[in-house]
Amino acid sequence: MQELVTDGWKPDSSLALPLHIQISNYIQAKIRSGAWPAGMRLAAQRDLARQLGVNRSTLVSALGQLTALGLIEGRRGGGTRVALSNDAHSNRAGNWNDYVEEGIHYPNLPTIQAINRLEFTKGLIRLGTGELSPELLPNETMKSILADLSRQSLPLSYEEPLGSLQLRTAISKELSNIGIHAAPSSILILSGALQGLQLIGQGLLPRGSTLLLEKPSYLYSIHSFQSVGVKLYGLPMDSEGLMTQGIEAEVHRTKASLLYTIPTYHNPTGILMTEERRHLLMNTTRALGLPILEDGAYQDLWLDNPPPPSLKAMDREGRVLHLGTLSKTVSPGLRIGWAVGPEPVIRRLADIKMQSDYGSSSLSQLLAAKWLEEGYHARHCEVLRMELRRRRDAVLDMLSTHFGHLASWNRPTGGFYIWLSLNKPLPLTKLFKAALEVGLLLNTGDLYNRSDARHLRLSYAYASLTELEIGIKRLAELVSSF
Amino acid sequence: MQELVTDGWKPDSSLALPLHIQISNYIQAKIRSGAWPAGMRLAAQRDLARQLGVNRSTLVSALGQLTALGLIEGRRGGGTRVALSNDAHSNRAGNWNDYVEEGIHYPNLPTIQAINRLEFTKGLIRLGTGELSPELLPNETMKSILADLSRQSLPLSYEEPLGSLQLRTAISKELSNIGIHAAPSSILILSGALQGLQLIGQGLLPRGSTLLLEKPSYLYSIHSFQSVGVKLYGLPMDSEGLMTQGIEAEVHRTKASLLYTIPTYHNPTGILMTEERRHLLMNTTRALGLPILEDGAYQDLWLDNPPPPSLKAMDREGRVLHLGTLSKTVSPGLRIGWAVGPEPVIRRLADIKMQSDYGSSSLSQLLAAKWLEEGYHARHCEVLRMELRRRRDAVLDMLSTHFGHLASWNRPTGGFYIWLSLNKPLPLTKLFKAALEVGLLLNTGDLYNRSDARHLRLSYAYASLTELEIGIKRLAELVSSF
Repeated sequence: MQELVTDGWKPDSSLALPLHIQISNYIQAKIRSGAWPAGMRLAAQRDLARQLGVNRSTLVSALGQLTALGLIEGRRGGGTRVALSNDAHSNRAGNWNDYVEEGIHYPNLPTIQAINRLEFTKGLIRLGTGELSPELLPNETMKSILADLSRQSLPLSYEEPLGSLQLRTAISKELSNIGIHAAPSSILILSGALQGLQLIGQGLLPRGSTLLLEKPSYLYSIHSFQSVGVKLYGLPMDSEGLMTQGIEAEVHRTKASLLYTIPTYHNPTGILMTEERRHLLMNTTRALGLPILEDGAYQDLWLDNPPPPSLKAMDREGRVLHLGTLSKTVSPGLRIGWAVGPEPVIRRLADIKMQSDYGSSSLSQLLAAKWLEEGYHARHCEVLRMELRRRRDAVLDMLSTHFGHLASWNRPTGGFYIWLSLNKPLPLTKLFKAALEVGLLLNTGDLYNRSDARHLRLSYAYASLTELEIGIKRLAELVSSF
Repeated sequence: MQELVTDGWKPDSSLALPLHIQISNYIQAKIRSGAWPAGMRLAAQRDLARQLGVNRSTLVSALGQLTALGLIEGRRGGGTRVALSNDAHSNRAGNWNDYVEEGIHYPNLPTIQAINRLEFTKGLIRLGTGELSPELLPNETMKSILADLSRQSLPLSYEEPLGSLQLRTAISKELSNIGIHAAPSSILILSGALQGLQLIGQGLLPRGSTLLLEKPSYLYSIHSFQSVGVKLYGLPMDSEGLMTQGIEAEVHRTKASLLYTIPTYHNPTGILMTEERRHLLMNTTRALGLPILEDGAYQDLWLDNPPPPSLKAMDREGRVLHLGTLSKTVSPGLRIGWAVGPEPVIRRLADIKMQSDYGSSSLSQLLAAKWLEEGYHARHCEVLRMELRRRRDAVLDMLSTHFGHLASWNRPTGGFYIWLSLNKPLPLTKLFKAALEVGLLLNTGDLYNRSDARHLRLSYAYASLTELEIGIKRLAELVSSF
């Protein structure tokens, strides 16, 4: 694991103390305090110099001093690490460096780790980010709700295992508008829908079981299921959604125990599953007794027409577990999502949630309840749809201008994403790095299907239209040059 | 798994429709909507009747109708379940009932599940609850901070992987007051300290490794480590804390990879590890290269004198990972805790946290940052200590009055807990149930050490002094009668 200097410290050239001494002092303090433990690898000199904003030669003289002090040492195979035995650390000190590569949970994909970190780097144009631009978030409304809350008694204690009853009641009412009839006792509040995947992976599926899903899928970019030993088996899609023909054979072959789908504005392809396909999927899986996990994150974000009924709305057997969230429409920072399903399943997930984090923020839950109860959500979604429609249309125009000869793409009818299909395969990791060099942060197709080499997930939700125009043009130049 | 009717619905005797028909209709709707899936077990008739507030005979006639409709059926071995094959459900429907007993994560202990649920039952006196009484929480101050926040721009987007820099900076400053010097880059924001245990279990320890800890310990009451295949090995304590003599032999015998300790106001015993013992522990483990996980949840809650330096404050090697939280001093509902440790470890935990819930509530983080930055925390803790001191002294008096001939106990110098040591062993599960019948919710010793049969964890932090007086008297009568 390459370690970066993450706290943004840089030496100060206005000080009398030479830069290399400042750097040496800084690193000494890190090592002597134990923040950088024995054996920790340092980043490559080039990367370190860039992060510290100094010449390579300045860095080299700082590292020379640290080596002379016995605090760092060269590694076999190149690179530098904190010395295993030095006056600050006994060489028998617990070696955390081994531990960070242990543990059953897989690390994020390197590209995802880079994206998570780089999203907080200023100046990059984020062409694939799956969240709303800050300017599209309802800051003023939230401030006025907070002002209201500051005049009432606050829920500062723990909430019950399923989450705040007030919020579950509000969600129950909201869901009934889209045909899902679920009592508050069938709803579990989550810290975002992602937590639902984590809890289901840990709480419902035996190690070694198989999960069917669309390919590509957002689920391939995270490890909620693989980390607990669940195998993923991807099924093809067409323009009407997940293709159902292969399901029966795969269920028999793999003994699959669950099917995960994003029927509405699929991530990353933007595809909307047609009503006919939904019926077919429900019938096929009913005959097989196959439970479904429906990810409804983009449900409210229709742009042209409301989507067909959700799978949960078509379910009378308690066979569908449905995930929803406020992250894609209102505020990712609130961390409020929900799972809707049969009561025994909801109860089991709630028990594991209690063991994971003892419930979600009561303040976020209260704010979310007010947001839904007082009708802000419906009004906000209307405005949001208008804005996203404008952005989608503009980006489709930009693509016609710059990518007409390089790629093809879908016209999404909701959600955030355009799935750009390049005319020829490209080395996507190289493209990601090259894009970064010209200030573009990409979500490459291999995140959603390991073997993909010709797709990019574009999002019209995050970057401004000006940024998108610059970014798409620059991206087209880059792709042409490959 | 026995299923309860959790949404508090009861038939309404003021309606013309007979009660048994109302009940039958209610359950039909649950089954036909799939909220109660095929095969789900119903609670015992006695429990169901009590929850619904009806006579057993009323319930029996409702169940008779449902049986006639083919919606429920008797189970071999007794009890009732939703029929496996009925007109609402195909008998091949995915059987979620099997799934809720699968999954790698253990369910909570039955007593803990009962406690989690019963804590939201009105009228029970909670004698062992490990949280502050709502009246001790800083409601007015939080309202005024919220009012302030409602006048500034809100952080509605995702926070960076380590959590809000503003909050990490505030925590860094706060920690320096107790001798822990940690840059914001060595701090990870958690949704409560419990989440830290979960992340460490998943992210740092290989399956099959061993963790040393005090016995009894709070850690025995949760499954963060056992669920990922980590074995716990308990070491004895005396009045000065964890006894260090056995550590070396156990490390060699078990190849233990980590030691978990609550040195300051231990949960459940209230013991404060002395400064001498802390040095001994640090020296013993240093020689063995054994990393330490220090749970500092009760750190701020000293009542007589400030505690000795935390283990993290004594650590110069980066061998101690320290957990802190606002849950025990300010607000459990905020769900804000933190881990402090070597940067590579913090980075690894942050990556798994991103995969678990994509960060903690940004609103909670902002509120917590303001709380610390503006000095509210220090002022609040002073008032809180005074109040807890008063409660502790009163409860010690009550124990002298009612338990002098029945038990012995410690005089805690901080935290929430008195560890009541009964003069003779008792069947604790029976005691728990009998206490519930007389309106008392207990935390029995077996939660913290499976083989314990003579301890109760009492808390002077939650119930009111009036409730505590009634409850302790009633408990003494109950214990005498066993």
